[in-house]
Order: sequence, then C-alpha cells, then structure tokens
Amino acid sequence: MRTSVDPPYLRLLQMLRDEGPISRAELADRLELTRPRLLAEVERLVAAEYVAEAGMAASRGGRRSTLVELHPRLRFAAVDLGASSIDVEVTNGRLEPVAAYTEAADIRSGPKHILHRVSELLAKARIDGAYDRLDGIGIGVPGPVSFRDGVPVSPPIMPGWDRFPVRELVTREHGCPTVVDNDVNIMAIGERHGGVAHSVDDFLFIKIGTGIGCGIHLNGDVYRGTDGCAGDIGHIQVDPNGPVCSCGNTGCLEALFSGVGLARDATAAARSGTSPALAERLTAGPLTARDVADGAAEGDVTCIQLIRDGGHRIGSVLASLVSFSNPSMIVIGGGLAQLGHLLLAEIRSAVYRRSLPLATGNLPVVLSELGSRAGVTGAAVLASHVAFEQAS
Amino acid sequence: MRTSVDPPYLRLLQMLRDEGPISRAELADRLELTRPRLLAEVERLVAAEYVAEAGMAASRGGRRSTLVELHPRLRFAAVDLGASSIDVEVTNGRLEPVAAYTEAADIRSGPKHILHRVSELLAKARIDGAYDRLDGIGIGVPGPVSFRDGVPVSPPIMPGWDRFPVRELVTREHGCPTVVDNDVNIMAIGERHGGVAHSVDDFLFIKIGTGIGCGIHLNGDVYRGTDGCAGDIGHIQVDPNGPVCSCGNTGCLEALFSGVGLARDATAAARSGTSPALAERLTAGPLTARDVADGAAEGDVTCIQLIRDGGHRIGSVLASLVSFSNPSMIVIGGGLAQLGHLLLAEIRSAVYRRSLPLATGNLPVVLSELGSRAGVTGAAVLASHVAFEQAS
Repeated sequence: MRTSVDPPYLRLLQMLRDEGPISRAELADRLELTRPRLLAEVERLVAAEYVAEAGMAASRGGRRSTLVELHPRLRFAAVDLGASSIDVEVTNGRLEPVAAYTEAADIRSGPKHILHRVSELLAKARIDGAYDRLDGIGIGVPGPVSFRDGVPVSPPIMPGWDRFPVRELVTREHGCPTVVDNDVNIMAIGERHGGVAHSVDDFLFIKIGTGIGCGIHLNGDVYRGTDGCAGDIGHIQVDPNGPVCSCGNTGCLEALFSGVGLARDATAAARSGTSPALAERLTAGPLTARDVADGAAEGDVTCIQLIRDGGHRIGSVLASLVSFSNPSMIVIGGGLAQLGHLLLAEIRSAVYRRSLPLATGNLPVVLSELGSRAGVTGAAVLASHVAFEQAS
Repeated sequence: MRTSVDPPYLRLLQMLRDEGPISRAELADRLELTRPRLLAEVERLVAAEYVAEAGMAASRGGRRSTLVELHPRLRFAAVDLGASSIDVEVTNGRLEPVAAYTEAADIRSGPKHILHRVSELLAKARIDGAYDRLDGIGIGVPGPVSFRDGVPVSPPIMPGWDRFPVRELVTREHGCPTVVDNDVNIMAIGERHGGVAHSVDDFLFIKIGTGIGCGIHLNGDVYRGTDGCAGDIGHIQVDPNGPVCSCGNTGCLEALFSGVGLARDATAAARSGTSPALAERLTAGPLTARDVADGAAEGDVTCIQLIRDGGHRIGSVLASLVSFSNPSMIVIGGGLAQLGHLLLAEIRSAVYRRSLPLATGNLPVVLSELGSRAGVTGAAVLASHVAFEQAS
C-alpha cells in the first residue's frame, strides 16, 4: 500500500554507480525532474565532489547533453571479517576494486587486534596510492549485528566483540561514515548487486562455511529482524538425536553439516577406512571440504555420500523456509559451495520435493556467482550507501 | 535506507479512522502540512464525502479549531470466508460494526454459490438499514491468493476457485473497490489493528484451525511472498514417519496437529478406551477440539497429553521460524487457540528452548485477543485502505 522511494540525489548517485556516465537529459527524464531542478542538483553534487563532468553525450537529435559520472576521486573501503581471515578492498565510485588485500587472522583475537590489522591494511592501501581519503567504509562481521547501533550483539564465535563500538571507532579513526553488518547479509547484498541475484527483490542467500547462515532480501532490502539476528538458521534442529552443537543444543543444522561438521565426518571416514580417498589425504594434513570435493570428483563413494547427506539436511531446512517465506530465488554460497553441483542437486531435490508446489513452481536454486568476493562486494555497496547519504 | 510514507490524505483518513475526531490544527501539526494546505486537503475530502465537520475542539489557548471526523455515511463490508462458514460485517468509517451476519457454508460448494450467499447477506444488511452504499469491501479466503490480481491461486481446499476472478466480480456487482487476501493474512491485519499486536511492526500470527497457516507482518506490512503463499507452514514436515497428509506428503505439521488431526487422534483415544472423558463425549457425536479442551479441563490425562504433543509440534516449527525471521511477537489464533494456556505453555517451552537466545530474549508468545473476530476486523481494515485510496 505504501510507496518507498529514495530521494532524487540518492537515486542519481546510485544510477551513476551502477551504470556509469549518463547525460543530464537522460537523468532528468529518468528521475522525473524538471531540467532546472536536475541542473541545480548536479551542480550541487559537482561542488561537493560527488559527481564530475564526463564529456558530451551522443546526440539525441536536439541539443547535445553533457555526461556526468561519479567523481573519479571517490573511494570506498570494503572489509569482510571472517572467522579466520580479513579481506579488504578499496574501490572507486563504481565499486571497481583499485586495491585488494587478504590475510589470515583469528576473529577470536578480539576487536582491538583485528581492527588494528584492518587499519594497517588501509594504511598500506593509502601508501600504495589506492586513495587520498575514504568516503565510506562497509564492514561485515561473522555474527549478529545491531545494524542501528553499529555493534556486534552476542556473537557466538567472537569473544570480546559483544557490543564493541566498531562503527564508532572506525568512523572516528578514518573520518568517514561507516556501516557494520552481518557477514551473510553483506554477501547477499553483494550477490544482488553484481551476482546471480542481480535485481531480484525477494531471495535467500545461504552461506555454508565454518557455520551456516542466511541473508534475507525482502522487497528489495535486507531483512534484519527485531534484534538483527534474522537468518540465523545454523541452530535450527534437524535431528534430535544428532551430535551436540557448540551452542549446547543437539542436532543443529550446522553441527551436522558445515565446514566443521564435514571435516569431522571426513576425518572419521578416513580413520575408519571407509574412504580410501580421504585416508590418503589425511596423511598430508587435516581434512577440509576441499578434500571431500576432490574425493567425490574421483568417484569416492563415501565422499559423494557425505555431500549428499549434507545437501539433504540443508535442503530439508530450506524447504520449510521456502514454504514460510516464498522467495523468488535461493543462492548457495560460502566455502562449502565449492562442493558444487552434487551438493546443489541434493538441495534442489529436497526443496522441490518438500516445499509447497506453488512456492517452487518458478524457484531457481543456484550457486553464488561472486564466490569469495560476495562479502567485499556487499560491503562496498553498503559503504557507497552511507557515503551517498552524506550528499543530502 | 529508504523512507516509506503514505501520502498526507491517506495518513489523515487513517488517523480519523483509528482515533476519531481530530482538530484541523492538530492534523496540520501531525501531518506536517501548512495550514492552507491542510485546509485545502480537508475541503477536498469534505466535498468527496470522506470527512465531515464535527464541532469545535477544546481551546488550545489561541483561536479554537474545528474538529473533523470520517463522514458518518462511510461504510465498509468485511467478509471472512472459512472452510465451513461465512462471516460478514458492515462497519462505519471507524471500523465499528453496524451489522454482522454468520452462516454455515461449505467453501467447496464453489465460488458462484458462495459469492451469491455473500451478496444475499449484503443485500439483507442494506434492507436492515446498515448502509446505502459501500465504499470498500475486504474479503478473506482460506487459501493462497494473488493479492495483485485479486484471485485465489491453487487453493488446496477450494475446488473451483483457482484463478476465479473474485475481486473483479465483487467490484462490478457492488460498484466499489474490493480487495481479496488470504484468511490468515487478514487475521494478522486484524490483530495488529485492534488486538494484542497493536502497532507491532514485526510479528507472526499463527492460525491453528482446520489447517495451519501463518500471517507474516514485516516492517509494519503484510509480507505475502513472490507468489502470495508466504506463511503456508501447514505442510512443513515435522515427522518423516508421521501420517499421510491431504497434500500427499507424510508427516506435515497440519496432518499431525490441526482441527482435523486432533479430532482424528481424539476419536482414536475414545475408541481405544485410553480416555474416559473422550469416550463419554463420543456417544454425543463426532469429537472436536472443544471436547479435548473440556476433557483437559476435567483433568483427563489423554486430553492433556494430546494438547501438549500438539503444542510441542507447533513450537518446534515456530522455533525454526523464529531463528529465521527474528520477530517481535508471536500471536496464536484460530479455532484451536481455545485449547488455551496448556497449548500456549507447550508452544512457549519449545520456542524458548530451541530458538536462538538473542531472538527470544524479548519475544512474547501470546493468544489472539480478537478470537473469531480477527478475520472480519482485518478484512474491514483492508476495505478501508482501498476505499481511502480512491480519495486521492
């Protein structure tokens, strides 16, 4: 019943971000602004160094119109904090990376240490010439976040981070607006901006990695829930007789199938001798999802079965969530998406068999296109949002 | 990131609907309109017979301001079609009923027969003096609806209704705008307007009746999903070894616990002799949820256990949905809500034990306040929406 529209300057900046240079004439048409109003708006944004002239547009028959584009000076920082890694990208206004850094880091070493590492990576980017000053910073963290307050809230795998003022500290240090969100939410935002969910308004992004989480997009926006923890599906119980989970309950989805669960089951299979492929790989070091994927590719029956069982577990939970939320698309991402089409086939089978037929008639279940870049891409999108909002 | 605001005339009409007479001065303040703009808007709405003068307001110190109210002539029709009943209310602008009718009717007798009965009830209301003409009609049906098209879509228990042009026919017959929605959605809307979820933006309304469904309110609006079937949780599998459901799958939630399932289990308990209370009631006719509630109130162990088992099933599914959607409140309604606090206690126990602690920290799980009137109340709210939109 309601109309939900961003103000013209925000839509203008988003168009330039997503499409590149556009003529003033076209901008006036598409924003439904009078020409004087549009010219005044552009002049204001040029003065504030958000947009810049970009030469003449091709003729549309009448007077030629000049192109405008996002100011070449604009820079956003995108930070994706994982359980065991830090990814940082600096992008231009169009969210194209101009510098990228990755390093191993244990999120459990605490916010001071981790944010210090982030600052050093950003300092390095500046020395490398990636930016003079930043216009916005987006940060994803592997736990629930109060989006409004910019702080992690009771994050299970992030000791010391509860209510730590991440946004406030980063904003103060870098002198630019900062936004903090859950890692799965930023992956979903990234996939919608530049991946397989491009322009899809209602979809679920399922991250299967160290843990399992779900990014929810409804009506074109992230849905975060009352406490910011919507999508925390890793602790849905799928087997009352299953293994004990890190949360203390038994039979949680992520206790049965996730990076940790799969490594545990693969190691057991290697030791018991049921999987020659895994036994061989165990001699080279601790097993990971990659070993199971490789074993399955070689035709190892146990590896194939481990992936199938996992896909079935995930698919059964997704079937319930599809009946509940009736999305347009499901995207599977995170580290275990590397298990590929065998995993996907099993997830699809469970979803299509168990969900309401009406809800699955046109429901694609697909792998993430952006892979490990989904997080930084979404963080850059959020950084551009907060930066553009300053242009009001 | 976006702002979502209804235009001033809609907010004005909604304020008068929800609060009664308001002075022009207060309306101008609250709608943030200049006084001339407000006066012009009111004048327009008076001319169109949406609002009327309502005397002088109490003095606020300066010049006294005149009150306006919704026009006393405004009438909405609210229609709640159930599996086996038709409820019709005619309300004034403030959604207070001025006439109400209920009759038994089998939804399976098809759209022509049922809509003919609705017309006759509305004709009776007119003869009874309840209205001269209707300004809007809201209709709830017990199945999935394409809200945009105003038609039921593949409704499982409504043979003959698939894609039947309900909205078009009713609009044409009564010459006023009509809106068609799912019965659970209208119950949720009703509960938010005048019940326990008053002004709560994010909540789930669980209807446990002949079947089981869920109305989803997110960000203050009904969430209907891509195909209009969001909230169809009755066919979530809770026990792979459970009974066969009407949908063809096994172990669906509503096959295990709903009006139909409970009557089946109660009858079995009466026949097997495990429940004296139910055996005695079975001699008087087919058993219903009411018999189980009464038996439990008398202390019959089997009745208590039946309710507890059902509550546990519902609560386990809700725990998953709470982890997924992180709502602010859960409201339990529908016919089986009459099982009362025993049912509620079991649902609460399962939700609080199994959902993410962060999501249940402040999560009330409560019974519907409006009971059997939730549906017509919500239908009247929808009717007022479409009527008010005509005032643009």
